[in-house]
Amino acid sequence: MRLPLRSFCIFRSVIAQGQAVDVQRRGLSGAAMRLVQFRRRGEEASIRVGVEQGEGHSVVDLKAFDPLMPSTMRELLELGDKGLECAQRALASGKCVVDRADIQLLSPVTGPEKVVCVGMNYRDHCLEQNAPIPKEPIIFNKFPSAITGPYDDIILPSESQEVDWEVELAFVIGRRGKHIKEEDALSYVAGFTVANDVSARDWQMKRNGKQWLLGKTFDSFCPLGPALVTTDTVTDPHNLSIRCLVNGDTVQDSNTDQIIFKTAALVAWVSKFVTLIPGDVFLTGTPPGVGAFRKPPIFLKKGDVVECQIEQLGSIINKVV
Amino acid sequence: MRLPLRSFCIFRSVIAQGQAVDVQRRGLSGAAMRLVQFRRRGEEASIRVGVEQGEGHSVVDLKAFDPLMPSTMRELLELGDKGLECAQRALASGKCVVDRADIQLLSPVTGPEKVVCVGMNYRDHCLEQNAPIPKEPIIFNKFPSAITGPYDDIILPSESQEVDWEVELAFVIGRRGKHIKEEDALSYVAGFTVANDVSARDWQMKRNGKQWLLGKTFDSFCPLGPALVTTDTVTDPHNLSIRCLVNGDTVQDSNTDQIIFKTAALVAWVSKFVTLIPGDVFLTGTPPGVGAFRKPPIFLKKGDVVECQIEQLGSIINKVV
Repeated sequence: MRLPLRSFCIFRSVIAQGQAVDVQRRGLSGAAMRLVQFRRRGEEASIRVGVEQGEGHSVVDLKAFDPLMPSTMRELLELGDKGLECAQRALASGKCVVDRADIQLLSPVTGPEKVVCVGMNYRDHCLEQNAPIPKEPIIFNKFPSAITGPYDDIILPSESQEVDWEVELAFVIGRRGKHIKEEDALSYVAGFTVANDVSARDWQMKRNGKQWLLGKTFDSFCPLGPALVTTDTVTDPHNLSIRCLVNGDTVQDSNTDQIIFKTAALVAWVSKFVTLIPGDVFLTGTPPGVGAFRKPPIFLKKGDVVECQIEQLGSIINKVV
Repeated sequence: MRLPLRSFCIFRSVIAQGQAVDVQRRGLSGAAMRLVQFRRRGEEASIRVGVEQGEGHSVVDLKAFDPLMPSTMRELLELGDKGLECAQRALASGKCVVDRADIQLLSPVTGPEKVVCVGMNYRDHCLEQNAPIPKEPIIFNKFPSAITGPYDDIILPSESQEVDWEVELAFVIGRRGKHIKEEDALSYVAGFTVANDVSARDWQMKRNGKQWLLGKTFDSFCPLGPALVTTDTVTDPHNLSIRCLVNGDTVQDSNTDQIIFKTAALVAWVSKFVTLIPGDVFLTGTPPGVGAFRKPPIFLKKGDVVECQIEQLGSIINKVV
């Protein structure tokens, strides 16, 4: 007997037996979904995980569909295939749908162990600076406390006069691993999302002993979202148009085919140093057009609106306050 | 009626009412304790929080004393005064004591949001390098995945030929805060512990675009412990002898009075950039005597044993494998 799709995932062990072959064939990335984290209005204290019914459409509330499902994306990813299968059944059920107007979308991942960032990773961005193409990835990071939602405000700190934008393709780890081979690396990736690697250039470039961390990690300096778009949903993550607009003017306009160290190479590289775990976020670097390299340089000011767009993934829009 | 000390903390609301005045007078740091995280042998999957009956003595199992108490230090710290009061009652009860032989001591904090590190923060270490005394703290970090226990192995990565030791005074945040004033900063600190800021000098100094992160964050590169010694237990954290021994030979031997930016200054400084939360770990920099600045340089090799000692806090001993 095959259980109908609308069955609660409480029965997931039964379902898992019935679908064992399917699951193996599909692997972790088999489910084409747009996963989100959100709060229901009036329940501001609690985070929920959901699945969008389409980009910008209503959201299926995973915990309403199955009370045994976790409340955060990191916990969902820790369940591996079981969690993603349940999300897929929830989506197919057409039940437990919450209207967009009744929710606040959060970053699709909050509280990851790591936010790994890559510097100088677009060919055209290196050319812009007359910088050589790096032979190895340049890895730095933000603290997880920098993460903010897809439509949340970027808080301009009084400590910096040079806050800049950087649209970036981000990906999220779905499976624990160390010393991952490049040819296996994509099976460790749960999906992709859009990031703004907001950067205080004065702190990044001129202070803190030229260690980039402080300039990159002010609170609210990592808007992410709107959704974690699972790997199989994306045709080719390294052939997507990528754009940043400030107050409606296009300031960055490139394609992810300019990325030097691609998703698989970055997973393999970083996992030589550290164990990657579900929820870890990677920001893959920015194309040309940042404010710091303009003549004269332009920086963000209160009231500016920054929109970061990536084809197939969506748009994040953050006001500077 | 005053409840006897051995009462379970299930009754803590009653106790809290009765002790309200006491608690206010003491504040967060009022309890003199050595808090630890451990595993009972045979129960390797589960972390427990405990209180040492004295340095290196038996441990009171907090969750055995009160089943409502959390299983991790980060969660205990999130409870604020309530958690520390319960730990103090558990210690005073003399109950739920576990023999040292039956447990494995873990790092006193695991899975913090941040591991904040400070470079060039000992006067005598700056002199050793002919480097100027920094005018501002130099902040970098490790990923939380680098943390390992006080007696766990340091894993020598095949990717580095220049792995070095750095004994450091560490402290742990006990209370959420942003833009913390230096004069209030100590009330945000739960306590102190000993750290080894293990460093792959080749990766720190010569590669990764001179961003220190990768060289500092290999798995196992942050031994911590043996205990989180609460603030009021330590006479003066900035007047403690601090030593590192490699295979029994003293290689670093200084005093925390050489620290340039002290605990309160570091809390105030970093909280200008990021919101600090309970469990965040700070490593405050290392004194002279690291391997990289010896002539000729000396680096760690398989079989070496590194011991880091700080007066009043204890010793961590890690074998290099």
